[in-house]
Amino acid sequence: MTTAKRDTYTPETLLSVAVRVFNERGYDGTSMEHLSKAAGISKSSIYHHVSGKEELLRRAVSRALDGLFAVLDEPGAVRGRAVERVEYVTRRTVEVLIAELPYVTLLLRVRGNTATERWAMERRREFDHRVADLLKAAAAEGDLRADVDIRLATRLLFGMINSLVEWYRPHPDAVGEREQLAETVAHLAFDGLRTAR
Amino acid sequence: MTTAKRDTYTPETLLSVAVRVFNERGYDGTSMEHLSKAAGISKSSIYHHVSGKEELLRRAVSRALDGLFAVLDEPGAVRGRAVERVEYVTRRTVEVLIAELPYVTLLLRVRGNTATERWAMERRREFDHRVADLLKAAAAEGDLRADVDIRLATRLLFGMINSLVEWYRPHPDAVGEREQLAETVAHLAFDGLRTAR
Repeated sequence: MTTAKRDTYTPETLLSVAVRVFNERGYDGTSMEHLSKAAGISKSSIYHHVSGKEELLRRAVSRALDGLFAVLDEPGAVRGRAVERVEYVTRRTVEVLIAELPYVTLLLRVRGNTATERWAMERRREFDHRVADLLKAAAAEGDLRADVDIRLATRLLFGMINSLVEWYRPHPDAVGEREQLAETVAHLAFDGLRTAR
Repeated sequence: MTTAKRDTYTPETLLSVAVRVFNERGYDGTSMEHLSKAAGISKSSIYHHVSGKEELLRRAVSRALDGLFAVLDEPGAVRGRAVERVEYVTRRTVEVLIAELPYVTLLLRVRGNTATERWAMERRREFDHRVADLLKAAAAEGDLRADVDIRLATRLLFGMINSLVEWYRPHPDAVGEREQLAETVAHLAFDGLRTAR
């Protein structure tokens, strides 16, 4: 039944193994040999599915980027006042980050030694710029504090959100945890921790 | 004048070179050979100052930890309502992080393969707990929103603050930038971005 195990491999299962190994060893530190061992299939079987590890990286970060960019087209992100839209995008970004945790973790760790890595970093910056534009629009509508620098606030907001990949570990028994986390991030960023005075 | 250059080396200058190399290559990936080349002095000259790379790591993370813990003993951190104290600690933590950027960067990247690394992680957790205790006290005094989970809020607050080591690069011409950054972090965390309603 050795071949049966091989037959169960699809590009998707191979991708999830590759993402785990990339996150553990770093993309640079991962060889096709490492991927072959982790997947339990030969290198030639991997080449049957993909052209090499860079294609696996591209597919993995695309999954994260597609999830993030899709948020920007949701009704909550395109209708209403800018402050409500950016708060919606903040909550949904947290939810996508948690739903696609290994893929977004990889995206955030990419450092730019290959064309695919540079492309991923460029797309990630584009997403950040789209959110920064929403924050600017909210400031222009008078809904954000005038004494806060929007560029700094954008960095800090993403610093807070992206830190989740470092410390968040899903609890299988905690239903609704994802929504609670998204709510907490949005409350902290937009309303602050302090009781209204 | 070769020896003159060697004579200028003090434990402090050696430390700043070591911290730069640790941050570039990772602590695990740094050998005494790398340190010797970067410092431009022989390995035996390094051993004249320190017992090895682990002592350099301990001194470097101690500098970061001493700076952070000192904040907790400052008057602003020990007098007044808890919410004011934790806001003060937040601002001062940002200022220490920027003042000691390479040292705190190293501290935050330490991952625990040696006794020194595990000690540093333990001390860092202790600092986080001290701040979490302040947040709990502020909540107990009714000054923090009741609908926010303090454990989550602590993680997010440090996620935001610690992200600075990834993206902040000092501008030599921007006087007051450090204070502005500290103010922005404190505003965002405690008052939120939204205009008071």
